[in-house]
Amino acid sequence: MFRSHNCGELRLSDAGKEVTLSGWVQIGRGFGGLTFVDLRDRYGITQVVFDQDDNAELAERAKKLGREFVIQVKGAVRERTNKNPNRATGDVEILATELTVLNSAKTPPFTIEDDSDGGDDLRMQYRYLDLRRGPLQENIIFRSKLALAVRAYLGDKNFVEVETPFLIKSTPEGARDFVVPSRLNEGQFYALPQSPQTFKQLLMVAGYDRYFQIVKCFRDEDLRADRQPEFTQIDCEMAFVTQEDVLNTFEGLTRHLFDKMKGIALPEFPRMQYDDAMRLYGSDKPDLRFGMPLVELNDVAQNKGFGVFDSAELVVGICVPGKANLTRKNLDALTNWVKRPQIGAKGLVYVKCNEDGSFKSSVDKFFDQEALAAWAAKCDAKPGDLLLVISGDDEKSRGQIGNLRLHAAAEYDMIPEGAFAPLWVVDFPLLEWDEESERFHAMHHPFTSPKQEEVERMLNGDHETMKSLKADAYDLVINGAEIGGGSVRIYDRALQERNFKLLGFTEAEAEEQFGFLMGAFEYGAPPHAGIAFGFDRLCAVMNGQSSIRDFIAFPKNNQGRDVMIDAPASIDDEQCKELNLRVTVEEKS
Amino acid sequence: MFRSHNCGELRLSDAGKEVTLSGWVQIGRGFGGLTFVDLRDRYGITQVVFDQDDNAELAERAKKLGREFVIQVKGAVRERTNKNPNRATGDVEILATELTVLNSAKTPPFTIEDDSDGGDDLRMQYRYLDLRRGPLQENIIFRSKLALAVRAYLGDKNFVEVETPFLIKSTPEGARDFVVPSRLNEGQFYALPQSPQTFKQLLMVAGYDRYFQIVKCFRDEDLRADRQPEFTQIDCEMAFVTQEDVLNTFEGLTRHLFDKMKGIALPEFPRMQYDDAMRLYGSDKPDLRFGMPLVELNDVAQNKGFGVFDSAELVVGICVPGKANLTRKNLDALTNWVKRPQIGAKGLVYVKCNEDGSFKSSVDKFFDQEALAAWAAKCDAKPGDLLLVISGDDEKSRGQIGNLRLHAAAEYDMIPEGAFAPLWVVDFPLLEWDEESERFHAMHHPFTSPKQEEVERMLNGDHETMKSLKADAYDLVINGAEIGGGSVRIYDRALQERNFKLLGFTEAEAEEQFGFLMGAFEYGAPPHAGIAFGFDRLCAVMNGQSSIRDFIAFPKNNQGRDVMIDAPASIDDEQCKELNLRVTVEEKS
Repeated sequence: MFRSHNCGELRLSDAGKEVTLSGWVQIGRGFGGLTFVDLRDRYGITQVVFDQDDNAELAERAKKLGREFVIQVKGAVRERTNKNPNRATGDVEILATELTVLNSAKTPPFTIEDDSDGGDDLRMQYRYLDLRRGPLQENIIFRSKLALAVRAYLGDKNFVEVETPFLIKSTPEGARDFVVPSRLNEGQFYALPQSPQTFKQLLMVAGYDRYFQIVKCFRDEDLRADRQPEFTQIDCEMAFVTQEDVLNTFEGLTRHLFDKMKGIALPEFPRMQYDDAMRLYGSDKPDLRFGMPLVELNDVAQNKGFGVFDSAELVVGICVPGKANLTRKNLDALTNWVKRPQIGAKGLVYVKCNEDGSFKSSVDKFFDQEALAAWAAKCDAKPGDLLLVISGDDEKSRGQIGNLRLHAAAEYDMIPEGAFAPLWVVDFPLLEWDEESERFHAMHHPFTSPKQEEVERMLNGDHETMKSLKADAYDLVINGAEIGGGSVRIYDRALQERNFKLLGFTEAEAEEQFGFLMGAFEYGAPPHAGIAFGFDRLCAVMNGQSSIRDFIAFPKNNQGRDVMIDAPASIDDEQCKELNLRVTVEEKS
Repeated sequence: MFRSHNCGELRLSDAGKEVTLSGWVQIGRGFGGLTFVDLRDRYGITQVVFDQDDNAELAERAKKLGREFVIQVKGAVRERTNKNPNRATGDVEILATELTVLNSAKTPPFTIEDDSDGGDDLRMQYRYLDLRRGPLQENIIFRSKLALAVRAYLGDKNFVEVETPFLIKSTPEGARDFVVPSRLNEGQFYALPQSPQTFKQLLMVAGYDRYFQIVKCFRDEDLRADRQPEFTQIDCEMAFVTQEDVLNTFEGLTRHLFDKMKGIALPEFPRMQYDDAMRLYGSDKPDLRFGMPLVELNDVAQNKGFGVFDSAELVVGICVPGKANLTRKNLDALTNWVKRPQIGAKGLVYVKCNEDGSFKSSVDKFFDQEALAAWAAKCDAKPGDLLLVISGDDEKSRGQIGNLRLHAAAEYDMIPEGAFAPLWVVDFPLLEWDEESERFHAMHHPFTSPKQEEVERMLNGDHETMKSLKADAYDLVINGAEIGGGSVRIYDRALQERNFKLLGFTEAEAEEQFGFLMGAFEYGAPPHAGIAFGFDRLCAVMNGQSSIRDFIAFPKNNQGRDVMIDAPASIDDEQCKELNLRVTVEEKS
């Protein structure tokens, strides 16, 4: 038996008991004839004391223990003279009578403490040591408990968790698939699912009524910061429901999770139309923890002789409350920020609404006090506020100033600590016209239904009509992060065929790739709708953190590599041959 | 709103209520001026009645409904005159006042009833229809509830569910890996995990103490009946434990699951040494629902002039109780069965222990009544019993008669209905010597520890010594099916290196493939042990069924194909090119 208790459970009431503990040496220190060892495991830290007077040989051995040694200690629990009120076990210590070194430890490349000094690369390489740190353990344990809470809640609501297959078929829609060569089916490949979309729809056709799954999904994308090639979804589908049912069910789930896991009672989730989100925040996932909506200034800012504005499709501003006091340097930094290629604005106009009621702007040459007062009025700005204005193409400018809004709020600490602002964004367009490829893309995915009242227009309308079709598609946004998205689905073969045609599929292509689904629609498919939550993201957002990587036990780096195990790696020729494959590049090393 | 109630919840107390139901037409039938429709969903079946006298137009439309049409019905609940006591809703019916056809249905290729007439191929192709059948829905819902119960139990016991990665590194040990070409890391491949083995060990090194995961695993094997390329494990690992702790914990889990899910109180699980299992049942997973242990007959059967026995390493028999009355045809069938190439016996000797105390055998020429009486005594046979005897190589003969034991028990209904016989098989050998390849294989896997008392022998012993090393490795067997297996792990770098060396790894190979794990052992690795249960198999065994396929929503067929979605499939040249691959065979079609 390695332990009678863990390192987090002994209390004053245990005083006198003979116990056995096992764990890691957090730190050891000598004090006179005493050696103190903080013994750590997942459950806590217990102080162990070795007394020179009591057992000299033992105390000598204790002095040689290093950080992260794994030891087993026997001894009696006793009250501490010097109690530690910050520790659950802080009233007691173990007076050691036996010590076994279960395993020694080299000096770790970084100290196992809450604030790691490792740096990202070392942390990833020694992930098993990084995972020992308190904050990461809390994250991973939070994730485990959150998953349990999700399952309990949905299970209570008659959702059935059904495992859908990982070895499926590659489809060119959406992001790139990871593929898996088949040895038994020569020359053919499976694909790893980007989501269980078609399978969950088939489960609705099969009468399962309410499906969910917490499931890994895969996307072979060029990795950006905080994207992972494999990620986890809470994937759901319901039959005989409308959008309203789905929104209520998953708002209920979300509120339950915040309540149970964080003790936070979220208010009823507001809803915002996609068009309004784009218009007011330049984003389909507005962060509503703070205000600063976009304000169109065309009518007050154009035709005053400022050519940049006059030639722009849109002049749009935000009012940054209380920031009229920004310095020249601050304002230059903001200007440079919006001019970065990722944002792409040509410039930034500012207007300081001075406390004395006057205005100072970067375009004083063109706009007098009265003109600027009109801007301020339009933006509902008060003395002390700062207006930031961008102009240009309508869509781009909204995106740019929407990004600036987020940047300024973060930069100047305007986001209330611990606030959560959930939001349903609804009424997404069904199709998105891509000028470059001259084709429609599905805004959500090809299985999304137009709104019921749009079906006729979709089946019979012309090209321009298609651009204006709205879908019963919805996103859950919290604090500006997309937590989930879903839609009401098509369940009629003719409508699905029409959608594939609009998306540029030939009849043969649609049949080859999705014939099984359209076939299923002919055998009694119920109306159905669903949603998927990004589980990694939900974990991070619920804890007010921005990096999903800290909620994934073994994440990949930005090149899609696991640097700890050194994957991916080359495989031997024999394996390639069995798979009927030839690699056409030399491995880079 | 598609429904106010589901099809399983209305009762007599609801009589008079106006309700809306949605579901599938199970069957419709006319009776005088009435049309009855059984409306089905996952929750049950409710009778709907359309009355010609009440609403002629509606009744006409109802007559046109086909099987599996999806409809919505409004009407009032009323008491049935002709109650159906076999149905929870059997006291009531809905008198329909509105009918909406939500979707029509073609005639299904097989009837959606408990006993399907589809046949395997059709069932797989139209899996979404097969999944509508009652028995499959029960299986899939059982699986979902079982997973919830596993998670709740382990969660209560401080196990943390941690998701381990799916895109890992290929290792040549064990079965073949499925591989995933990396686009971003040219010429390199990920592998899909055969199990999360190394990651769960790293989680122990990382201090997570108790890990579990219900997780998909992948093996690219030549498929046999009831094998699946992707399957699900309950995967577990514990730190600071002995074998005893693991066995107790997972015996507790198993008993809890049988109790909670099936209302069955399992007895304490017996334990059997691997050597005894092989000796007494010719199998490392004996089915203990019935007796018939193997009996060595060398001392009574050899040196009586029967050359086949005399030249055999082993003469081994079983006593089939009460089967002395088998006919010549029965006995020929058993003989042919053991001579099939899959079994490979050269022949089968029988002895009938007649009710009158005499014996009749197929080797009467060589053995007199007295000799046969000695066999019977050795086998503890009573009058009316039948002895079946095989001879030859020790190991092979035991396997053959072990198989015959199972076959005879099944063939002659000697397995008590509804019985569950759990068993821990323990003390597996550490290494298995393969004569053909002249190398050792890991009996469990390369991370399994020899028993503590064997460590010295393993580090310093000679080749022959290695063959006799025992491991702290264990299997849970229920009704002759291997439900789970695990072991105490190595957590010391030197011992792990020694094991890799014995398994034929060069130092460089071991380092390249498992250097990360051996490295982790140097930074404070605790003693740890674990186990994994086959979740698909557990579902089947708990329900007294033998096919795991009926507990998997979307299984592959014996060629590893999903015939419903037609996967795997060829991918286009562009995709291959992006992955730096060339396919070296033409796709078979």
